[in-house]
Amino acid sequence: MSHPIVDIHTHVYPQSYIDMLRSRKTVPYVHDPASGAPSRLIILSSDDSESIPLDQRGRPVDSSYSDINVKLAFMRRHGITTSVVSLANPWLDFVEPEEAQIWAEKINDDLEATCAKVNTAADPDGVRALHEKETLFAFGALPLSAPSADIVAQEIARLKTLPHLRGVIMGTSGLGKGLDDPGLDPIWKALQDTDTLLFLHPHYGLPDEAFGGPEATDRYGHVLPLALGFPLETTIAVTRMLLAGVFDRFPRLKILLAHSGGTLPFLAGRIESCIAHERKFIANGGDTKGPSRSVWDVLKTNIYLDAVVYGKAGLKAAIHAAGGPDRLLFGTDHPFFPPLDGKEEEPWLSVTTNYKAIDATLAGDTDSIKAVLGGNAVRILDLK
Amino acid sequence: MSHPIVDIHTHVYPQSYIDMLRSRKTVPYVHDPASGAPSRLIILSSDDSESIPLDQRGRPVDSSYSDINVKLAFMRRHGITTSVVSLANPWLDFVEPEEAQIWAEKINDDLEATCAKVNTAADPDGVRALHEKETLFAFGALPLSAPSADIVAQEIARLKTLPHLRGVIMGTSGLGKGLDDPGLDPIWKALQDTDTLLFLHPHYGLPDEAFGGPEATDRYGHVLPLALGFPLETTIAVTRMLLAGVFDRFPRLKILLAHSGGTLPFLAGRIESCIAHERKFIANGGDTKGPSRSVWDVLKTNIYLDAVVYGKAGLKAAIHAAGGPDRLLFGTDHPFFPPLDGKEEEPWLSVTTNYKAIDATLAGDTDSIKAVLGGNAVRILDLK
Repeated sequence: MSHPIVDIHTHVYPQSYIDMLRSRKTVPYVHDPASGAPSRLIILSSDDSESIPLDQRGRPVDSSYSDINVKLAFMRRHGITTSVVSLANPWLDFVEPEEAQIWAEKINDDLEATCAKVNTAADPDGVRALHEKETLFAFGALPLSAPSADIVAQEIARLKTLPHLRGVIMGTSGLGKGLDDPGLDPIWKALQDTDTLLFLHPHYGLPDEAFGGPEATDRYGHVLPLALGFPLETTIAVTRMLLAGVFDRFPRLKILLAHSGGTLPFLAGRIESCIAHERKFIANGGDTKGPSRSVWDVLKTNIYLDAVVYGKAGLKAAIHAAGGPDRLLFGTDHPFFPPLDGKEEEPWLSVTTNYKAIDATLAGDTDSIKAVLGGNAVRILDLK
Repeated sequence: MSHPIVDIHTHVYPQSYIDMLRSRKTVPYVHDPASGAPSRLIILSSDDSESIPLDQRGRPVDSSYSDINVKLAFMRRHGITTSVVSLANPWLDFVEPEEAQIWAEKINDDLEATCAKVNTAADPDGVRALHEKETLFAFGALPLSAPSADIVAQEIARLKTLPHLRGVIMGTSGLGKGLDDPGLDPIWKALQDTDTLLFLHPHYGLPDEAFGGPEATDRYGHVLPLALGFPLETTIAVTRMLLAGVFDRFPRLKILLAHSGGTLPFLAGRIESCIAHERKFIANGGDTKGPSRSVWDVLKTNIYLDAVVYGKAGLKAAIHAAGGPDRLLFGTDHPFFPPLDGKEEEPWLSVTTNYKAIDATLAGDTDSIKAVLGGNAVRILDLK
């Protein structure tokens, strides 16, 4: 391997987190069937429908979710040299306020310790290049349910003292009111002041009614919520940030959007046109302040996109919206989307699809392919 | 003008339809302020919020919505030689069942008469080429609320006898249960058997909760429902058709998707991946029949996309997903998105943005530009 391949979209559930979920009875929770069948992880509210037998709700959860050796084996199997791991959704969104800070510190310290252990084992003498052995970095979790946003800002500052933390992961709920909530300003300020990258990731999807009600949603399993609900959730969240002027007030925010921005690259033109034609905004004779910066400017200045979009059509839009391939970063979404034929020891379709899409979209441009696969992540996240 | 420029996404509200809306008090309706200010058109349920004063709900509606001379002047101003007009949303979705057929026949006969009159006036001797003077064709409306789907099929057959009708326009509600409803099969069959193009167009958007509730939605005017709700509605509708096997059962359906497919080109890869990883489907060991055909195949075989996406990023994805520029068709969305500075007699930003995006995306490929601007529509819709 002559160049690093960095997976910036890869999740872990530390054992302590799984144990916490096992003690719960409402979403998110882990259920152990009395039959002895594999445990079930129920994280989406649409998975928790009364119409689904408890033993079949959600998805099977096994050691791949928490055992870092499974992650390392997955990396070796797919030629990935560095993973920037993050707690999977729904992170700590649901934790009791008084426990949020404790849990965030615990999870983040755990992540730091895991990275340190793996990287030391990989390079006991401290002489190897980044990509000669599997290495790990991490995005930290935030105590968003804590009684005050200052506690969140405090944890963002503390993460800078942990050598393997390279940013934070966050959902679209914010403090419970979405990302256009002015109450988030102390958090945006802390992220900007500490130059901390935010990995923005969906979890809540769309209301079932968007898909025709619970029955219609359930008919096709996870397809509608995951294929359409997740990307739209991300798009709505970042559009609300734009409309509320978050990028005007915090022009140096750095945000990595999951799934190549949800649908933001494709819809950017329509968003811009709808803003230009919105009678409510002062620029158009209305009484509400609209955003000062354009979505195109924000895409090229504040936003990074992962390359988890499973096809050339999406990648082409993402690369154009980002102003070139320098803001695109390879990812896998491991441990989600495993092969369903039991052949987990072979290359995963969900990974090879993205590798192929990158190769095909940037065909012949070896430097750009290397940049998307790892070079961009090394530069942007300062991985060394 | 050496080649036709065809606008396939351009709406009309015949005067009889506006009069009918004026007699209503629930969405959709027209309200005349006592002040004598311009009438208001309230078509979206999000526009009908109690928190908005009645005189300010919806949008101003003027003669541009019903006067065909305004349409012709708009065409001349933008170099458009042919418009394929369609009734604007919400069409006849809300009409009482026993009145649906009468209204559909009336609207469609009106459209035919308007096209015939304009085209005869443009070419009294019947010798001019299509693009030497403004000409009109139309997509018909369907009586979807009629007591039986057979009445809809009957109107589809009747439209073939009207010389200027070139297809039908339809929303995503179908018979009220979405487009994966098996009750629609007689309609799909009629469309396929008569080789009638269906222009699929959004209207209902997403539930307010998707945007953070009514207050959050209202804060930014129409931006969230129109920029994000509309495209997602289209994407969900066509994905539900795919998942329900509609394209397996009716492999020769021809569907034109509004707004370049909503977000379908961008999300096609993710949809395909989610289907391949869905445990519920028989192919993956489950008990539900999944779709046999891939979304990529359907995009290249059954689907046409308008070029109303306001930017290069979206157009690049659309062209790739469609397998090239031959399935993309220019459109304007007139009379929506007019200039808000009162300069309606100058070129509209909403139109020039799409012209520029087509030019820039296909830069130098004059044949493809001409195809997207008009040649494709002439070929696909048999305009002559």
